[in-house]
Amino acid sequence: MATMNRRIVLASRPHGEPTPAHFRLEETRVPSLGAGEILLRTRWLSLDPYMRGRMSASKSYAAPVGIGEPMTGGTVSEVVQSGHPEFPVGTLVQAFGGWQDFSVSDGKGLRTVDPGRAPPTTALGILGMPGMTAYTGLLNIGAPKPGETVVVAAAAGPVGSLVGQIAKLKGARAVGIAGGPEKCAYLTRELGFDAAVDHRSDDLPGALAAACPAGIDVYFENVGGAVFDAVLPLLNDFARMPVCGLVAGYNATELPPGPDRSPNLMRAVLTKRLRIQGFIVWDFASQIDAFERDVGGWLRDGAVRYREDVVEGLENAPEAFIGLLKGRNFGKLIVHVS
Amino acid sequence: MATMNRRIVLASRPHGEPTPAHFRLEETRVPSLGAGEILLRTRWLSLDPYMRGRMSASKSYAAPVGIGEPMTGGTVSEVVQSGHPEFPVGTLVQAFGGWQDFSVSDGKGLRTVDPGRAPPTTALGILGMPGMTAYTGLLNIGAPKPGETVVVAAAAGPVGSLVGQIAKLKGARAVGIAGGPEKCAYLTRELGFDAAVDHRSDDLPGALAAACPAGIDVYFENVGGAVFDAVLPLLNDFARMPVCGLVAGYNATELPPGPDRSPNLMRAVLTKRLRIQGFIVWDFASQIDAFERDVGGWLRDGAVRYREDVVEGLENAPEAFIGLLKGRNFGKLIVHVS
Repeated sequence: MATMNRRIVLASRPHGEPTPAHFRLEETRVPSLGAGEILLRTRWLSLDPYMRGRMSASKSYAAPVGIGEPMTGGTVSEVVQSGHPEFPVGTLVQAFGGWQDFSVSDGKGLRTVDPGRAPPTTALGILGMPGMTAYTGLLNIGAPKPGETVVVAAAAGPVGSLVGQIAKLKGARAVGIAGGPEKCAYLTRELGFDAAVDHRSDDLPGALAAACPAGIDVYFENVGGAVFDAVLPLLNDFARMPVCGLVAGYNATELPPGPDRSPNLMRAVLTKRLRIQGFIVWDFASQIDAFERDVGGWLRDGAVRYREDVVEGLENAPEAFIGLLKGRNFGKLIVHVS
Repeated sequence: MATMNRRIVLASRPHGEPTPAHFRLEETRVPSLGAGEILLRTRWLSLDPYMRGRMSASKSYAAPVGIGEPMTGGTVSEVVQSGHPEFPVGTLVQAFGGWQDFSVSDGKGLRTVDPGRAPPTTALGILGMPGMTAYTGLLNIGAPKPGETVVVAAAAGPVGSLVGQIAKLKGARAVGIAGGPEKCAYLTRELGFDAAVDHRSDDLPGALAAACPAGIDVYFENVGGAVFDAVLPLLNDFARMPVCGLVAGYNATELPPGPDRSPNLMRAVLTKRLRIQGFIVWDFASQIDAFERDVGGWLRDGAVRYREDVVEGLENAPEAFIGLLKGRNFGKLIVHVS
């Protein structure tokens, strides 16, 4: 067995866009285990937009990664040594192994992945955190009714693509926003979205308005920025807006120039009686069984589909992550580590 | 009986603060009745901040008042002629009679006011639209739990004062924001608020922080502006914010200077998982019986109190309304018309 552990640590905190220089590949010894502990070998590492927040020192809903510490991240890992009876050697688990070859766990928070049920990588996508983000945010806060219009951005990604597909299953009209004609075609031809809008369009507000002739009842917010600006005037009375991410602003180093448009936003909240509500997936942790039953069932039945963008090699994680923040991936971004 | 009807019409649309010149007192003939109609004589006219919105041409949740048309407004009126069996002469009703001596109704939307139950003017305040705004917004959206901190501005007014008192009845801590020491003393000494903060304080953010050592769980938003700026950093995770008004901005003629702070607001929504939701009282029209039962009961028991600021004479309505937007009233502002 390998004795060295490659890991990617946070070398420095980015001001604006992260570059490869903000990461450093290190080799350390594979840690030895204490009583009851488990050694996990990372098979697949999930790359997700929230990781940009962990690179900054500012307070958010989770603590930042320390300088010189391995980047955090969800993984599908294999138990390679075990002092824990529930997780024998060879078991595949969903873990927070981070950007490294090996990690140590006491078993807390691990979930066994059954490779006979679905491909193991789905535990990082449609059957994992992104899928549950889509499911819980859309159903608890968005609560789409048949015939309503649901709009989601980053719609070719793992959250957005499931938001649109669940909206369809609930009888709503699904409109996806994505970057480029290839992703847009994927939404309507392969995932069954009713319409797709390219956010690189010369006239995003006009294109979105044309795709939403009856206005917007649910906007699943995961990007912010220019997309939100295009959405706001189209929101119908009583529209709901689950907010799980604001990727467009994650690299911002200062506020946009004036005027201060916050009063416009609040005025829309009042006159249209909007509901804007932030959430993170763990707020709905108690719904994990319902999520796995519903989305797992839809997946087996072919009622929902997913797409993965797999990058080979841990050493390529920084470049892939930088691309993720620019929308370069097409589908759930996963690093195949071993 | 009088044959002339005095009425105050919208003379022109204000750009910024309304002045007396935007209103005009006219005399017209008392209208004659069609079949089944009722002639109402206005006894009391309610003045409320939402009326500023009706003076503007821009779209809101209700149509603007037309130039030359009487200003709209809730009234307690007396039936003085009747072709409608449900409303005999002498009946007191809650109506939308507007800023005038007489109005005609077909009976639709009228509610009988029983003067033996509570003073008739309460139908314009604690037992009327402002009271129901406080009750439905706080309980449906704010949903305060025992021990939580509820903050409300314009707290000496008819909405804010009831928000704070209901918060107390639900076991929460009530913090009111009002203008000047007299109103602040009223909140804590007469209404039982736990703390009062003067928004004219040199350091509103500091004063509010001191009054909310455990942060804010519910902010009942009816003013916006500097108060909201002071509230936002104090909101706890999962705080709820019912939005029923934004009085501080009603006279604004342009957006505040930059930078554009909307991304800060949305970032707070996400990281604190805030729920911001606009409403108007009629959205909860189905809860009127529960409102009347609960608030009527609390009022009879002395569990909630109210204060009125009564102005004599229809001709003084414009000046009183202009003062309302500046917080000059102390309690529910009512014009005694006849």
